[in-house]
Amino acid sequence: MRMYEIIEKKRDKYELSKEEIEFFVNGYSSGEIPDYQMSALLMAIYLNGMSPEELKNLTFAMANSAKTIDLSSIRVPDKYIVDKHSTGGVGDKVTLIVLPIVASLGVGVCKMSGRGLGFTGGTVDKLESIVGYNVDIPINKAIRQVQDIGVCLISQSPEIAIADKKIYALRDTTATVESINLIASSIMSKKLASGADKILLDVTVGSGAFMRTLDDAKELSKTMVKIGALAGVETRAVVTTMSEPLGRNVGNALEIKEVISFLLSDETTLESEEVRDLKEVIFEIAAQMIKMSGVCEDMEKNKKDIMKAITSRAAYDKFIELIKAQGGHIYNVYMDWIGMNLDMPVLDDKVRYLKEIHAQSDGYVVSIDSKKIGEALVALGGGRNKKEDKIDYAVGFEFAKKVGDKVNEGDTILTVLYNDKEKFEKAFEYIEDAIYIDDVEEDVAKSLKYKPHVLDIIDEASL
Amino acid sequence: MRMYEIIEKKRDKYELSKEEIEFFVNGYSSGEIPDYQMSALLMAIYLNGMSPEELKNLTFAMANSAKTIDLSSIRVPDKYIVDKHSTGGVGDKVTLIVLPIVASLGVGVCKMSGRGLGFTGGTVDKLESIVGYNVDIPINKAIRQVQDIGVCLISQSPEIAIADKKIYALRDTTATVESINLIASSIMSKKLASGADKILLDVTVGSGAFMRTLDDAKELSKTMVKIGALAGVETRAVVTTMSEPLGRNVGNALEIKEVISFLLSDETTLESEEVRDLKEVIFEIAAQMIKMSGVCEDMEKNKKDIMKAITSRAAYDKFIELIKAQGGHIYNVYMDWIGMNLDMPVLDDKVRYLKEIHAQSDGYVVSIDSKKIGEALVALGGGRNKKEDKIDYAVGFEFAKKVGDKVNEGDTILTVLYNDKEKFEKAFEYIEDAIYIDDVEEDVAKSLKYKPHVLDIIDEASL
Repeated sequence: MRMYEIIEKKRDKYELSKEEIEFFVNGYSSGEIPDYQMSALLMAIYLNGMSPEELKNLTFAMANSAKTIDLSSIRVPDKYIVDKHSTGGVGDKVTLIVLPIVASLGVGVCKMSGRGLGFTGGTVDKLESIVGYNVDIPINKAIRQVQDIGVCLISQSPEIAIADKKIYALRDTTATVESINLIASSIMSKKLASGADKILLDVTVGSGAFMRTLDDAKELSKTMVKIGALAGVETRAVVTTMSEPLGRNVGNALEIKEVISFLLSDETTLESEEVRDLKEVIFEIAAQMIKMSGVCEDMEKNKKDIMKAITSRAAYDKFIELIKAQGGHIYNVYMDWIGMNLDMPVLDDKVRYLKEIHAQSDGYVVSIDSKKIGEALVALGGGRNKKEDKIDYAVGFEFAKKVGDKVNEGDTILTVLYNDKEKFEKAFEYIEDAIYIDDVEEDVAKSLKYKPHVLDIIDEASL
Repeated sequence: MRMYEIIEKKRDKYELSKEEIEFFVNGYSSGEIPDYQMSALLMAIYLNGMSPEELKNLTFAMANSAKTIDLSSIRVPDKYIVDKHSTGGVGDKVTLIVLPIVASLGVGVCKMSGRGLGFTGGTVDKLESIVGYNVDIPINKAIRQVQDIGVCLISQSPEIAIADKKIYALRDTTATVESINLIASSIMSKKLASGADKILLDVTVGSGAFMRTLDDAKELSKTMVKIGALAGVETRAVVTTMSEPLGRNVGNALEIKEVISFLLSDETTLESEEVRDLKEVIFEIAAQMIKMSGVCEDMEKNKKDIMKAITSRAAYDKFIELIKAQGGHIYNVYMDWIGMNLDMPVLDDKVRYLKEIHAQSDGYVVSIDSKKIGEALVALGGGRNKKEDKIDYAVGFEFAKKVGDKVNEGDTILTVLYNDKEKFEKAFEYIEDAIYIDDVEEDVAKSLKYKPHVLDIIDEASL
């Protein structure tokens, strides 16, 4: 078998065989196939696509190139181990809230997350804004932690999907990232290797996501659900909007603060405008995970249980338990608004400067471009341009207004927290560009404000 | 400017600017842009094509990456320097015959040729079957030779089109060779850098050529003629057939022998069946070159002059002069059939074995697949699979029959000249596969036999 002929075949739109796909995945992982041949093949795949059969074979070959994690020691009779994955976004703190909730309700999760690159943040970076939190725990220790407290949240093991890692790095420099087939096989190869019985995917759509249109997000969802079905691993996708940043805070420590606030909410807060978008996504994903785990099929009951897990503070306690288990520093403080002492994580959240950004005119907030907000965060130093970049965990944005809100000239739209004036200037250009205020009709503003955040649920029945 | 964005733009079918094209040509030549990014871009160009503007800019950028040869010292008032290029074929000895003819008629040519790779032969390899012939002459010495005797035939200067050389090597391993745009820009960048005023292209079509269909050959021709026009270098393409090998002999020394025979032909021979296909192509190309050079516009007169140049032996004398000038060994021998003494080149043509291949049935020769004959020659050792391969100059084939000829069972179709019995076995498989004899109607056979070899002439007026 020759790599040249494999490239030629894909270039000319013929279907690659299982053997050919395994040949290039294994040959590239081992270094026998050079980068320049692999990148030509990736561009041909990008432009000519793959058949469902090819896609399955690519995903399986990449999953098999990895050391599959054995989660049998934490498997409980009649229950399924559910893994959760998000395709990424700006202000996306869903994993950090959902995991303590479902763990407190008896759904154990051994979750591996990634770091951020470019405008999307990474869960692992957010966790590292907690002083002392260790994301690099060996997998056997992580499994013991799940046995003890029902949850772990660690960094992607380097042993997982070696082929995927190498291929992704190449795609990243050769403009072959935004391919639905390649994204689907990359995600699913890692998820299949992570050892879970079922997979819940949060597929984001909008300017701050890989998928820019609902059609693309649905196609990606269907592609991944199909791969899961072929692998015998039930997969479900929740399609959620990522046109404006999710929730109120963007930035690593700032998002941990929002996680804390959310998990300490009472029933009134959870029904308020303040948390509407975040709550909609969190409740749907957590309830789906509980359903898939085999704990309870009834989504309405699951959502009530989630409400109880938050208001009873069981979910918050689980969050603190998780942080403590992984070495995060905690301090005990009297919380005035709750009227009692509480454990709180110590955050790397010191900033030198605050700056309020004001509305320049009367009207409604028509859009907040999440990609540009993500880029503004990178400009502030809160994200990475290159893998080697160091992160300033403390910087970021707190939004006082969201899409659909009425504003008068001079009202604060958001507050920028920063440490470097030059970086602020760069970030400010993105922010100015990101926010669009217009004098639209009230009912238009309302439809923008109350548009759903959960756009679709895709499972095997949807195929 | 970033290579990533250039790849992305071409991937998404946007037009690249002149600056972007110069950026990647120069960046790749200098080694700043890595192979893996260049190969992704080449595949995107292969699959998404290029606009005429992009193609012009690519060709110019590649030509400018080279040291353009200054031919002003051999330029004559009111005359143009014409370069000739063939897209390659099997049994293609046209350059070797045309150059002495036109040089004997006052059209000087400083021609650089390449070596063969794969099933197509290279003019330089054929010349090297002449003992002592030196193809590696510095360009200033070559120019002096043109001043002295009107012709030189040397190997492609390593200074010519450095970018093209590097890009071609990468295309060769990443299945991006067969792109009309990339072939056109590669050929034309070298021709533009070679310093000629006008370019005559022999664009071959058929199984033994890069272009398999007449449509592709016409498209390639038009593409190159257009580039020439944009560069202010008048370019004309003669489209010729390469479905069966050209002439009677295939193999390096054997083709030199055919060149000698052709140049020693009398009028009767030139009107005979024996040389019909070769004569048609030679006369057309030589007459076009004379016309383009400004010597004489009248094609009919040019063809008569060519006839005279051959029958008077002026062209043959020019051929011997060329060989002597470049160090080729010559011996003087009494030629029985001419009835006089003649200078002849000393050839590296010793073979151990001869084998006649016979017709297995009665009928007509319907096809002789030139690609397979080219591959048979490589199998015999007369061509290269890899650049480093050494060539056995003596081996090859002499065809007794051509397409359209009537054969009876047992008639000799061709003679194989070889040095290694194992290599013969491999070559024989290709030969068996290459020749197709069938019991067709006589008029079908005739139409096959008398089909034209010059298929089209494409110049600026055809665009």
